[in-house]
Amino acid sequence: MPVKTIKPTADAYQYPLLIKQLLLSSQRYGGDNEIVGGNNGKRYSYAEFYQRVQRLANVLTEAGVKEGDTVAVLDWDTPRYLECFFAIPMIGAVLHTVNVRLAPEQIVYTMNHAEDDIVLVHDDFVPLLAQVKDQLTTVKGYIQVTDQEQAVEAPFEVLGEYEQLLAGALAEFDFPDFDENAVATTFYTTGTTGNPKGVFFTHRQLVLHTMTLAATTSMNDSMQMLQASSVYMPITPMFHVHAWGVPYVATMMGLKQVYPGRYDPATLVKLYLTEKVTFSHCVPTILQMIVSNEGAQNIDFSGWNVLIGGSALTEGLASAALDRGIQVYTGYGMSETCPLLSTSWLPINANDLSHDEQVALRTKAGKPVPFVDMQIIDANGRFLPHNGEDMGEVVVRTPWLTQGYLKEPEKGAELWENGWLHTGDVGSIDADYTLQIRDRIKDVIKTGGEWVSSLDIENLISQHPDIELTAVVGLPDDEWGERPHAMISVRPGKDINRDVIASHLQPFIDAGQIEKWAIPDTVTVVEDIPRTSVGKIDKKVIRQMLQS
Amino acid sequence: MPVKTIKPTADAYQYPLLIKQLLLSSQRYGGDNEIVGGNNGKRYSYAEFYQRVQRLANVLTEAGVKEGDTVAVLDWDTPRYLECFFAIPMIGAVLHTVNVRLAPEQIVYTMNHAEDDIVLVHDDFVPLLAQVKDQLTTVKGYIQVTDQEQAVEAPFEVLGEYEQLLAGALAEFDFPDFDENAVATTFYTTGTTGNPKGVFFTHRQLVLHTMTLAATTSMNDSMQMLQASSVYMPITPMFHVHAWGVPYVATMMGLKQVYPGRYDPATLVKLYLTEKVTFSHCVPTILQMIVSNEGAQNIDFSGWNVLIGGSALTEGLASAALDRGIQVYTGYGMSETCPLLSTSWLPINANDLSHDEQVALRTKAGKPVPFVDMQIIDANGRFLPHNGEDMGEVVVRTPWLTQGYLKEPEKGAELWENGWLHTGDVGSIDADYTLQIRDRIKDVIKTGGEWVSSLDIENLISQHPDIELTAVVGLPDDEWGERPHAMISVRPGKDINRDVIASHLQPFIDAGQIEKWAIPDTVTVVEDIPRTSVGKIDKKVIRQMLQS
Repeated sequence: MPVKTIKPTADAYQYPLLIKQLLLSSQRYGGDNEIVGGNNGKRYSYAEFYQRVQRLANVLTEAGVKEGDTVAVLDWDTPRYLECFFAIPMIGAVLHTVNVRLAPEQIVYTMNHAEDDIVLVHDDFVPLLAQVKDQLTTVKGYIQVTDQEQAVEAPFEVLGEYEQLLAGALAEFDFPDFDENAVATTFYTTGTTGNPKGVFFTHRQLVLHTMTLAATTSMNDSMQMLQASSVYMPITPMFHVHAWGVPYVATMMGLKQVYPGRYDPATLVKLYLTEKVTFSHCVPTILQMIVSNEGAQNIDFSGWNVLIGGSALTEGLASAALDRGIQVYTGYGMSETCPLLSTSWLPINANDLSHDEQVALRTKAGKPVPFVDMQIIDANGRFLPHNGEDMGEVVVRTPWLTQGYLKEPEKGAELWENGWLHTGDVGSIDADYTLQIRDRIKDVIKTGGEWVSSLDIENLISQHPDIELTAVVGLPDDEWGERPHAMISVRPGKDINRDVIASHLQPFIDAGQIEKWAIPDTVTVVEDIPRTSVGKIDKKVIRQMLQS
Repeated sequence: MPVKTIKPTADAYQYPLLIKQLLLSSQRYGGDNEIVGGNNGKRYSYAEFYQRVQRLANVLTEAGVKEGDTVAVLDWDTPRYLECFFAIPMIGAVLHTVNVRLAPEQIVYTMNHAEDDIVLVHDDFVPLLAQVKDQLTTVKGYIQVTDQEQAVEAPFEVLGEYEQLLAGALAEFDFPDFDENAVATTFYTTGTTGNPKGVFFTHRQLVLHTMTLAATTSMNDSMQMLQASSVYMPITPMFHVHAWGVPYVATMMGLKQVYPGRYDPATLVKLYLTEKVTFSHCVPTILQMIVSNEGAQNIDFSGWNVLIGGSALTEGLASAALDRGIQVYTGYGMSETCPLLSTSWLPINANDLSHDEQVALRTKAGKPVPFVDMQIIDANGRFLPHNGEDMGEVVVRTPWLTQGYLKEPEKGAELWENGWLHTGDVGSIDADYTLQIRDRIKDVIKTGGEWVSSLDIENLISQHPDIELTAVVGLPDDEWGERPHAMISVRPGKDINRDVIASHLQPFIDAGQIEKWAIPDTVTVVEDIPRTSVGKIDKKVIRQMLQS
């Protein structure tokens, strides 16, 4: 260890919250744990990892990166990407995690909008960048990343290959202190219309999110998410909301980590087995792929804890996963919220609960995590009671929310109306503070002063055996404000009309599960229900079709 | 729930870290857990607790307490005191936790120095205050606290009795947002000389300490400190460094909590049994009292996890506690550091370790917790290597250190020399980052450019069967700077001189356990080794005696 001497600091007791501090405990707790590259078999100790972070900091500094510059990454989920999670913000630059699944013109838009200075690009994305390179207006240099012996030949100038550059750099870097409110990361969220919007998070926000997530995932002995003996493997892309922030938590705790590269079910199952993975998080689709993967039907998944987010975990999938031994939990949040807002919360006596009770608890959005202030509000901004019935827009305050959208203050003002971040989700909150997401606010049907969840109606209609898929939307109505209308697709050879739907819903109305004004005014049968480019039901198009 | 409407907030995304936020999750996670008064049998749900905090806030506000005022508490460890931990800082006032064990004149000094405005006083301390009341220069009012049906008659005017005042107050209070750097708590630390010194902590500091302590105590499945199913009972006075901050953690996590009132071993053991306590923290003396308590020799203590701090946990006591089933761990910190800096850290395979290995790991000061930057420095302020041998003063940086001493900037400047808080402890750090405290810096012997731990020499001398107690101090020496000198008391009928000591130490020198210059120059035999008023060996007096 080199001899360093204590340096005087003004206002010494001041201690800005910076991402570099997460590495203090990582080395102390890391012990023999490794950070594993599932795609190329590389394995690093925490000591090596820290050296590589320092080498990368030197590489970037030598490439001209200064405080406030932006460094973009186009890579798969690897230990390299984790090094970028640290080294880039730790030198005071902004990490732009580029969504490589966007269309090329959207990738160009986000890279120009974020004003990327230096770009790290994996072999697989070199052809894409070659194609759009001339449209990139701010990029000053490229660093290539490869999983092969030799990187692919890039048809544009590069500063070098990542491993070679690291090998030639000093393994020591004196990371500076700076304002904890400096921006550390940015990435883009896509709506159904318009350009992607950039959200951004500061060092302080990411540190507080990490601390709280660490406590939340550790402190419930009825749920086994993260503990010192855990082995962590993300299955949510690192470009997507920092893989929900868990890589920061796992690193702070010094856990064994496994980065799978690209996601194919066979590889994920193999890594689960060989690396003894105990904790992952993913969207429902990936969980479905794992549970139904043909080669994995005889594999014992007990000991695998999986946090589900991104879209709702259905009771059917939760039940199937539990049957296979996978302990599933729901997490709720969004790109604008860093993301974590709430998780399923099992009580102390969870072992005594029935399978159905387990499923019900694990599929709710759960309890807000510490430091999250959450309310549901009506159309006039009034707080609604927590009785499990009243539905309102979910609004939150917590220390880790995006300040707005990058360079688009008017959209940020909408997000932040009246001092709370508006999630755009409609939910109810139980007396025990458990959140249930009921709808998107743009899809909820406002009829006769009441809010009716389009999802609730769809769920009930879907239980009719002749129906394949249902979409319910609200359309303007002179008397009631809005009224529900249904678009359905039916199974081959079946016929459905509004009377059939009304009769089908009547028992649910009699049972008090739904109000009678929830019966759709019209039922339109179609071949295919319109979907967006990512496969979600496109209610905007459906509304247009039903109104025309 | 009353209808409240969202209010606009400037810079909405700003979210100051305030103690009130710890109560957000307490109610959500609290469920059926109770906060129990072990001394009077009262039991509160978390919902009731929050109502009582709000009632107390109204009582204090009506008593004239404003932002920045100081409210002092003289009470035993009770749910009431926990209410004060929250309500007082949450209205923007400063909580002064008065050390009721100080001499009356020192209590007066601290209350005047802290400029206490309102005082909450338990029956048991009414006679004390009656005696010194005329010397209190800033107090504007007293609130009485009792565990009886009827409070004792106070010979001075009081605003009322706590429970009666709470009963008459509204159970609703709109706690304001304010600067997270507002001071929340203050208390006094006593040295061997001079007046007590006031340390103080801000909302931000206490929140960050709480978050980190929550993660630290939860995330190691080889150690069972705090989990959702834990039952917490402090055995460190709440006036002493916020009972190490654990009441804030337990409340944030919504745990069952048991406050024992006064500490007598029989009551503590009874509460352990009846309330099924799983986690406590205390000084070694209390643990010794529990382990050796006559009435408890047949009680199974397995399932009780006890964190030890305040002074060193000896291997003998750790071994005895483990033999009784108590899982002991060491915590290191001080009043100036909020207090937590490090804890014992068991590896993943802890179950495979032998009893002796367990004892060794559990008695070290352990690994610094997340966000603590810790170094050992030599006399020139240079960082020393982490090799388990080099000894230096322990210096720290972390977000929860006192800024200085209340109204004594010159003493704070000494504490904060060169941007690090100087603990005054001498330690070594192992290659795996484990800290061992070796001495106090004022007691370490600087001889011939080397530091020799007086404690190390004492430990070796103490192994001689004829010796009762040993104190080793450094005295000035023209040639070597300082040289060690020993003062000993011997067992009845035994005789010891310098040659005996030198021969006794020789095998340890041969084994490389100690250097030859550690042999004391002189050995002085006395009847009784001088001690301070709290029973610690008084090296200041010993130095004077040996030099005269």
